[in-house]
Amino acid sequence: MQYDPLALFGKRLVELRKARGWSQERLALESGLARSYVGGIERGQRNIALYNICVLAATLGVSPASMLDFDELT
Amino acid sequence: MQYDPLALFGKRLVELRKARGWSQERLALESGLARSYVGGIERGQRNIALYNICVLAATLGVSPASMLDFDELT
Repeated sequence: MQYDPLALFGKRLVELRKARGWSQERLALESGLARSYVGGIERGQRNIALYNICVLAATLGVSPASMLDFDELT
Repeated sequence: MQYDPLALFGKRLVELRKARGWSQERLALESGLARSYVGGIERGQRNIALYNICVLAATLGVSPASMLDFDELT
């Protein structure tokens, strides 16, 4: 693979979170995921699993597919 | 969440694999993932992580986002 999925996902999550005007704390609170885990995902350090990708999508009110809609690949 | 992400992902993977005319064995061979793991994913029994989602996307020649493009949610 010519790209780093974890880094791209982290960047995308920051983008979607900020579009809602949320802090990491707020996203953690709303999603039920630990704040430190959210921080690790956003830094590209967590190989997040499908279920939590969909939890974040539902929390942010976006489709699961848009969580993996990486600009760099289009 | 009103849906089962693992079941939907499994169904989507079967769809994409069959669109290429591949068996589970062929997808396992091409992706480097174990055949039993591919079978478990397709049965909705594996909470596959981001990196392997992107490995499967690259192997199938589709975007990561399309792996999570669940008809049931549109």
